[in-house]
Amino acid sequence: MIALSLLGIPNDDNSSYLKGTAAAPPLIRRELHCDAYSIRSETGIDFGEAGRLIDCGDLHFDGVADAWEVIEQGVGRALAQGGPLLCLGGDHAITHPILRAVRRCQPRLTIVHIDAHADLYDAYQGNPRSHASPFARIMEEGLADRLIQVGLRTVNDEHRAQFERFGVEVIEAANWRDGLRLDLDTPVYVSIDLDGLDPAYAPGVSHREPGGASPRQVIDLLHGIRQPIVAGDIVEYNPSCDISNLTALVAAKLVKELGGMMIKTALGGTRAAA
Amino acid sequence: MIALSLLGIPNDDNSSYLKGTAAAPPLIRRELHCDAYSIRSETGIDFGEAGRLIDCGDLHFDGVADAWEVIEQGVGRALAQGGPLLCLGGDHAITHPILRAVRRCQPRLTIVHIDAHADLYDAYQGNPRSHASPFARIMEEGLADRLIQVGLRTVNDEHRAQFERFGVEVIEAANWRDGLRLDLDTPVYVSIDLDGLDPAYAPGVSHREPGGASPRQVIDLLHGIRQPIVAGDIVEYNPSCDISNLTALVAAKLVKELGGMMIKTALGGTRAAA
Amino acid sequence: MIALSLLGIPNDDNSSYLKGTAAAPPLIRRELHCDAYSIRSETGIDFGEAGRLIDCGDLHFDGVADAWEVIEQGVGRALAQGGPLLCLGGDHAITHPILRAVRRCQPRLTIVHIDAHADLYDAYQGNPRSHASPFARIMEEGLADRLIQVGLRTVNDEHRAQFERFGVEVIEAANWRDGLRLDLDTPVYVSIDLDGLDPAYAPGVSHREPGGASPRQVIDLLHGIRQPIVAGDIVEYNPSCDISNLTALVAAKLVKELGGMMIKTALGGTRAAA
Amino acid sequence: MIALSLLGIPNDDNSSYLKGTAAAPPLIRRELHCDAYSIRSETGIDFGEAGRLIDCGDLHFDGVADAWEVIEQGVGRALAQGGPLLCLGGDHAITHPILRAVRRCQPRLTIVHIDAHADLYDAYQGNPRSHASPFARIMEEGLADRLIQVGLRTVNDEHRAQFERFGVEVIEAANWRDGLRLDLDTPVYVSIDLDGLDPAYAPGVSHREPGGASPRQVIDLLHGIRQPIVAGDIVEYNPSCDISNLTALVAAKLVKELGGMMIKTALGGTRAAA
Amino acid sequence: MIALSLLGIPNDDNSSYLKGTAAAPPLIRRELHCDAYSIRSETGIDFGEAGRLIDCGDLHFDGVADAWEVIEQGVGRALAQGGPLLCLGGDHAITHPILRAVRRCQPRLTIVHIDAHADLYDAYQGNPRSHASPFARIMEEGLADRLIQVGLRTVNDEHRAQFERFGVEVIEAANWRDGLRLDLDTPVYVSIDLDGLDPAYAPGVSHREPGGASPRQVIDLLHGIRQPIVAGDIVEYNPSCDISNLTALVAAKLVKELGGMMIKTALGGTRAAA
Amino acid sequence: MIALSLLGIPNDDNSSYLKGTAAAPPLIRRELHCDAYSIRSETGIDFGEAGRLIDCGDLHFDGVADAWEVIEQGVGRALAQGGPLLCLGGDHAITHPILRAVRRCQPRLTIVHIDAHADLYDAYQGNPRSHASPFARIMEEGLADRLIQVGLRTVNDEHRAQFERFGVEVIEAANWRDGLRLDLDTPVYVSIDLDGLDPAYAPGVSHREPGGASPRQVIDLLHGIRQPIVAGDIVEYNPSCDISNLTALVAAKLVKELGGMMIKTALGGTRAAA
Repeated sequence: MIALSLLGIPNDDNSSYLKGTAAAPPLIRRELHCDAYSIRSETGIDFGEAGRLIDCGDLHFDGVADAWEVIEQGVGRALAQGGPLLCLGGDHAITHPILRAVRRCQPRLTIVHIDAHADLYDAYQGNPRSHASPFARIMEEGLADRLIQVGLRTVNDEHRAQFERFGVEVIEAANWRDGLRLDLDTPVYVSIDLDGLDPAYAPGVSHREPGGASPRQVIDLLHGIRQPIVAGDIVEYNPSCDISNLTALVAAKLVKELGGMMIKTALGGTRAAA
Repeated sequence: MIALSLLGIPNDDNSSYLKGTAAAPPLIRRELHCDAYSIRSETGIDFGEAGRLIDCGDLHFDGVADAWEVIEQGVGRALAQGGPLLCLGGDHAITHPILRAVRRCQPRLTIVHIDAHADLYDAYQGNPRSHASPFARIMEEGLADRLIQVGLRTVNDEHRAQFERFGVEVIEAANWRDGLRLDLDTPVYVSIDLDGLDPAYAPGVSHREPGGASPRQVIDLLHGIRQPIVAGDIVEYNPSCDISNLTALVAAKLVKELGGMMIKTALGGTRAAA
Repeated sequence: MIALSLLGIPNDDNSSYLKGTAAAPPLIRRELHCDAYSIRSETGIDFGEAGRLIDCGDLHFDGVADAWEVIEQGVGRALAQGGPLLCLGGDHAITHPILRAVRRCQPRLTIVHIDAHADLYDAYQGNPRSHASPFARIMEEGLADRLIQVGLRTVNDEHRAQFERFGVEVIEAANWRDGLRLDLDTPVYVSIDLDGLDPAYAPGVSHREPGGASPRQVIDLLHGIRQPIVAGDIVEYNPSCDISNLTALVAAKLVKELGGMMIKTALGGTRAAA
Repeated sequence: MIALSLLGIPNDDNSSYLKGTAAAPPLIRRELHCDAYSIRSETGIDFGEAGRLIDCGDLHFDGVADAWEVIEQGVGRALAQGGPLLCLGGDHAITHPILRAVRRCQPRLTIVHIDAHADLYDAYQGNPRSHASPFARIMEEGLADRLIQVGLRTVNDEHRAQFERFGVEVIEAANWRDGLRLDLDTPVYVSIDLDGLDPAYAPGVSHREPGGASPRQVIDLLHGIRQPIVAGDIVEYNPSCDISNLTALVAAKLVKELGGMMIKTALGGTRAAA
Repeated sequence: MIALSLLGIPNDDNSSYLKGTAAAPPLIRRELHCDAYSIRSETGIDFGEAGRLIDCGDLHFDGVADAWEVIEQGVGRALAQGGPLLCLGGDHAITHPILRAVRRCQPRLTIVHIDAHADLYDAYQGNPRSHASPFARIMEEGLADRLIQVGLRTVNDEHRAQFERFGVEVIEAANWRDGLRLDLDTPVYVSIDLDGLDPAYAPGVSHREPGGASPRQVIDLLHGIRQPIVAGDIVEYNPSCDISNLTALVAAKLVKELGGMMIKTALGGTRAAA
Repeated sequence: MIALSLLGIPNDDNSSYLKGTAAAPPLIRRELHCDAYSIRSETGIDFGEAGRLIDCGDLHFDGVADAWEVIEQGVGRALAQGGPLLCLGGDHAITHPILRAVRRCQPRLTIVHIDAHADLYDAYQGNPRSHASPFARIMEEGLADRLIQVGLRTVNDEHRAQFERFGVEVIEAANWRDGLRLDLDTPVYVSIDLDGLDPAYAPGVSHREPGGASPRQVIDLLHGIRQPIVAGDIVEYNPSCDISNLTALVAAKLVKELGGMMIKTALGGTRAAA
């Protein structure tokens, strides 16, 4: 049976404005396993089924070892279990060392990146590991073949220069129409920054940006992917900004829907409800 | 003049996970009559007009009489006033005894059921009256000819078996597109579980499920109905989960829009704004 | 080993203004067992010790049997286990049937009643079972020898007449000084209405009344009791009024401190920290 | 360089139900300049660029001078700087004296008015300056050639009579489809009452009305305007109703997007992202 | 029968940092009359008794007349009814014109002023009417014989100079012990700024200052006054800062307790519970 | 002029249950410098005076260097400025490396530790650096001569053994009476865990424990210290648990009062208000 591996990466060392995302993984898990909700995905995959979900726990940052190496090695170990891997941040900076590990197994890889921000600064406040910069690092190191950014609504001139430099494909929030489908031709890594959603749905983020997507739009985009989704992350949940745990629950829902599509695309299947 | 009857049914005896919906009716009424809002419906029906709204108050459960009989009899009395009836829950379990009373007056009846959940379990935690089971009871007892469920996003295999067994027509949330119209050919009962809405709009429910409808989508669906809506319910408002009374207000809005369509379809009219 | 029995009584049928207290027991238990807190009491009693706490679960009200009989019988069964019993409401009305069961085992009994309100109305809105009336019923039926009310701040003329009629001893909030000790000479039943506390500490009650006690004042009063506390209740937690679960946690704290004193006084001991 | 003038008008003297909107301007500015967000607009206009934004501060109402004259003169001074002007309320009543000043510079003017309410009462509770009446005053005084109201969901018979009397063009919320474009042929004044948005996105308004627009729908409508937007207002933000500053942030976002379109249409440009 | 006059003064024109207190009076009245609470005071005075409470409504500021004259005249009219007068702010600036009217009837007058701040600045940000300055105006104009300030916790050198200049008697929060009694020898005006309370009890103020009094401490101080309390105010409730209406309820409680003492001291009585 | 050094230590690597305290320092600073509040202390020290406050910023944890060395060296640099030092956590684990640096300058040192918990576990969940263990490390390494713990309310047998082993002096919350004064005879380090306060005042902590101190009690304890307070910390503010920033403001208040006493005791002065 193909199992989804779930790995918490509670690291917010590189958050520039407001820390707090390191508190996220246990709060997302609490919603995922709460008796009030079904753990079955709309995709038809039931994560309550024995052997369908392997929780690898949280990486531990002891303040001694280099955090990037802790992440790269931890992700490597989780991938070694053979199933698709979903990582829970932490802030968006972690996507860089995650992809170092993922890339070793994936010679062809497209990143689908849902976010309000491009996260492409060469460095931010002098920090090249900043959570505003991971995709600059990723593209420089050649950790993906294509980068598709969806839902952006804070693009500036430096971003546009980086789009050109790295050949980034961009669908801004203003152009995200219902029923959007992406044209994909390689295995896929999906990186979801929760601020890609509108703050009404996901207030628990450090940088709220009105005008974002609804959970249904994101789920619909994910359900439409037919290439294998080999790994991904859900990042930037900041409980200190949340209202009544709304965002933790949205993150848990996305674990089920993104994770469900990881299983389905690994099975070569198509969406049950389609 | 055709009057809408409004009846509170503050009963949450059969809520499995979290009680609290018994507190709902007075809080919904408070929003309905609040000076900050108009009591006129978008349908053009004005519930501030003398004689347009008959508030039958709340049923009283004294802990002695059988609650199902209290409901069936109370609903029967309210229906005897001749106008359409809108019941305020309480949890979804109450729809079963409500329909026992409604069915006696309606030889042909279609239920339009808006919800995140199918509520079709044969029993839940051993309780056949559970708020997760009313539609199993209703269909077994033949209390409706058709059951159309709209907005579901937690369907599992037991539900699919029940869909087949009872001939349930299902439009999952993933397939609910703007402008959805239902093909109806009998009088209609509308049952609205507030968790059919996305938690951003209606956080005050015991089982929040992201990816739901907007109030506008629900109102638009209701406005499109042309068959007489003879009765209905708005259930599962749980104030202990609400944020800043948002959900109480949405419930009050739906009282006006569903109630307004009850009056309009009883008058044989069509939507004013159409 | 002497064990504390814990029994949930999720009944709010007799709440006049706002229902919702039926949702309380599982939310109090969640705080009691939350990993963030110690389950050890300040009294030195450790409820994490095997055999120290027997959770009898929640009574079930099926809407068929008389709720007062369900409570009286359920409490009787819990008392039959031999240890002291702590009941979690539900509203204050439940104290009446609880005491019917308790009185059968206790020929001499003093009630220590902490509350903002006297709850002594002969009837309220025509309902003699109202949560504003339990102590009128209790004293009429002779279910206690003495009634001491502490923390009141809404006394009116009808209450004063009832004080006289039933010989109630009253310490209003205005006269509750730090270090208050009660002069007790029989076994004790402690009934804590959470609105006895100031709303800053316990906002989750249907009838907030500023000017109340602090948790420390209540705990100090409890720690000073030397007679056996044979049973008690913590009632009127209404989650729909709570802020960030503050009141659920205070209720759980009081379970530990009142329950701890039940064990200590049963052991004939005195307060460890004294 | 064309600069946007920003003027706070903290006046809620004419709010009928609940005051509090006078507190809005500094709270909206705080979000606009918060380090967590970019001050660049999706239109491509960057208000962080030197000289692009002139903050005229807040008008001061000293309780001596006539507030309508304070507003008319203050707006006149701000307009004299030559750039487009965006006013921050305060309640909707202020639009009347604002337009007295704007009209002097604009012989041809269309008002695009986004709101849940028509604000066309001849008077409300005897007050002709009421925040429910500004557009009656505006149209009577001939301060605009056309009035287009978008997003209404509380229309009644008095409103319909006023629509007829003043030739108001109306697009109710029920008819606002994605991609809506307005047919405009004169310079434009845009007046945004934040309750035009659904309360899930903008709870911080005195009169919440479910079924409203999303921020994206409003932004998309604004981005589609090609005529010069010479002035406008964002009104009715009431912090006492807000949740976690959600509405202040939406208002700040609309300052950037409406302000950005003011600059772009003044430059004769078209939307960058189009 | 001696009646308490209640007058709302919804004016925040002179709030320097954050407006919003103009929204307070109707919200305080809503709590005062809410069915969940008794309108009887702990003093034994029952404001539900016919003729005991005269609500003079709210003053209207039309933006034309001088607000100070509106207040002075409105207060004069309310005082002309003969009973003691309790004013609901609005911000603290209103105490100045209130006292102009009160002083005309009271040749001997002591102000008891409960507050976190001395409000004695000669002017604040150039505004002599600022809500940080009323007691400088009051003492300059000789509107009281003595000024006693209780609960201060932000005293600076300018304040100390003003203490000396005006002979102010000060009891800082650090020195406010339980059971505090004031030595009074003239009729009394009581001015309660809600930020005199700790923010845990009264978060709904523009300038929260931890380390303040509890409601019980304030009530106890009021209950200990034996001189006639001829007038007073409760000011600075800012709903935009409140949490779950906690502060509105505290304000309503203080209306009952301060108002009750106004009646009792007018009757020449002493505290019932003493 | 003696200046207070302020140093942020945003580290929560060793929080067992819930991370998030790393987000605290900027939020506490925001309240400290907010225009709504005075930056003057009740001690008479004015931190707005030029040269009175040196903000050393936040330590940066880059995920490469050992965090304990980063803290010890950063604290050493801050102490080298010569004035007293106040550190802002982060969780309580940081007190261990802070004291390594402090001890080098202080041959005689008493720790005054205000907390709900003893934080004396030999290790917690296998982590000797746990935030539940710093005082075990501190006492083992001889980093203080005396340890006085105030406000505890979760003492268990392992704690009591450690009290004995290390000679800890303990004043539990149950015994903390108003006006408490400590008998001190060496320079002092004050460590304030915000959960020493009652959750009504400081809800923003990972481990809320009802029955705690009020801010006034803590301030009074601090104001009573006459020995030099050479350094200290305010730790465990977790914004993800806060309500409306109440706890951030309490922390900022304590910065002023503890910092003020650091200056005063360094000046050899006594409390101005005494």
